[in-house]
Amino acid sequence: MKTTLDCIPCLFRQALETARMFSKDPTVHERLLKDVLGWCRDMDMNKPAPVMGQRIHRRLRRLTGLKDPYRRAKDAQNKMALSLLPGLRRELARSGDRLELAARMAIAGNIIDMGAYGDIGLKGVHKAVQHALAEPLRGGLPAFRLAAKKARSILYLADNAGEIVFDRLLIEELGPERVTVAVRGHPVLNDAVMADARAAGLHKLARVIDNGSDAPGTVLEETSPEFKALFKTADLVIAKGQGNYETLSEAPRRVYFLFKAKCPVIAGRAGVALGAQVLARSGRG
Amino acid sequence: MKTTLDCIPCLFRQALETARMFSKDPTVHERLLKDVLGWCRDMDMNKPAPVMGQRIHRRLRRLTGLKDPYRRAKDAQNKMALSLLPGLRRELARSGDRLELAARMAIAGNIIDMGAYGDIGLKGVHKAVQHALAEPLRGGLPAFRLAAKKARSILYLADNAGEIVFDRLLIEELGPERVTVAVRGHPVLNDAVMADARAAGLHKLARVIDNGSDAPGTVLEETSPEFKALFKTADLVIAKGQGNYETLSEAPRRVYFLFKAKCPVIAGRAGVALGAQVLARSGRG
Repeated sequence: MKTTLDCIPCLFRQALETARMFSKDPTVHERLLKDVLGWCRDMDMNKPAPVMGQRIHRRLRRLTGLKDPYRRAKDAQNKMALSLLPGLRRELARSGDRLELAARMAIAGNIIDMGAYGDIGLKGVHKAVQHALAEPLRGGLPAFRLAAKKARSILYLADNAGEIVFDRLLIEELGPERVTVAVRGHPVLNDAVMADARAAGLHKLARVIDNGSDAPGTVLEETSPEFKALFKTADLVIAKGQGNYETLSEAPRRVYFLFKAKCPVIAGRAGVALGAQVLARSGRG
Repeated sequence: MKTTLDCIPCLFRQALETARMFSKDPTVHERLLKDVLGWCRDMDMNKPAPVMGQRIHRRLRRLTGLKDPYRRAKDAQNKMALSLLPGLRRELARSGDRLELAARMAIAGNIIDMGAYGDIGLKGVHKAVQHALAEPLRGGLPAFRLAAKKARSILYLADNAGEIVFDRLLIEELGPERVTVAVRGHPVLNDAVMADARAAGLHKLARVIDNGSDAPGTVLEETSPEFKALFKTADLVIAKGQGNYETLSEAPRRVYFLFKAKCPVIAGRAGVALGAQVLARSGRG
């Protein structure tokens, strides 16, 4: 989806937060904001907003020499999510519809977002889980259930650290032998990379690949040949999080998107209320 | 006070909201945002943020030919505040410390702000009034009381429409015969102009002047000679609202500032929590 004018204030907010994760030096923060001011002036609004996020992270990596200042936060997020896993499994065991509840839990995990108005604290995550348990998924569930039943191969695009532990529950329900999990190819924000898939234990359960790209979303043309081939041929593609929705909602195949609508622009585009749990599918394919 | 990097995302948010008040045409919104991107890149961060607000409004007036798209909103805000006036007077009549309560009410009125995270609905204003009645003013009150007692001449810088009705209560307590009320010289945001002082009935009570400027604050060098003289010679200057605080906190005389801290940057600068009722005075004079 395109970048809207409403994304501009939010991009600056995120740029400043990101700069502060990379460095305590105010000259770095100011330098980055000046860069972003220039980029935004000439930007192609037809490109999705995560492309700007990618550019911001690239510049900060160059300015500071740091590769992954979010690593410690991601470790903490994985640990927190793993501590919730036994309780979530008990809820699943009690459930009459395990696939739906596992999907809702995977969406609840999407609250752990350091980009767009997420919440990385235990309290916010607990609240999201309670919300997920209480509020049924509307809309795309029957089609998703059918697609999941029929698929021989499933490509599962992970989003954030911590969240990827919640994803494990849905992957287990889907049947991990059919699933390939794709994480980001390079650290960006608190997005999950290979280390996070391992922390969640996914490597023992399913095939895990990285997508070869450093975008906080899935910019198809930048992904690895292996990823591109899987994206094209998998019977079912499941994409987690807003960044994947923004970058893949117009992809040339059907994709099922699972995310919490944390920003008003995306909620509006998906036709849901802010904060809603979304299971949407792209029109094509 | 200076513009901080945290002001940048907020300036873009305000620019977009303002553009939408002026026009429904997305090309106007985009044009303005591109202008602001350029201005911010070259901006002098030593100047207070309302100077950028002023520039945004000037450009939108030129782009659209409109002089005051906030007029209808301001009328509604005055009407709402006038409807609350009898109840506020009853509270004052019951109070053991009328000056303090009137000051708190004047601060509560500062929630009616269309710039920085204000609330222009009756519910938000009611909540602010309840807060004002419940939470005593800390800090500068004894000095303010003494200054008010001693002053023969008081210059009272109004801030917003609606709010100016609340100001009336404090002006009545101060003794309107000593007070000159200054409003903005030209419409900008929902800031009070002469029509709003009249709607609040202040013209029958005290002397009312306009400051000759179109800034959403008080940029001294741009104000009229009459205003400048009064600002210099008044025994006591009371300035309402964040915009006046941002533009006058380093003015070459003592000023008493009354406002609700609606933005984290200003709350931090004033050393209070976000949402706090502030009675602060500048160091000089």
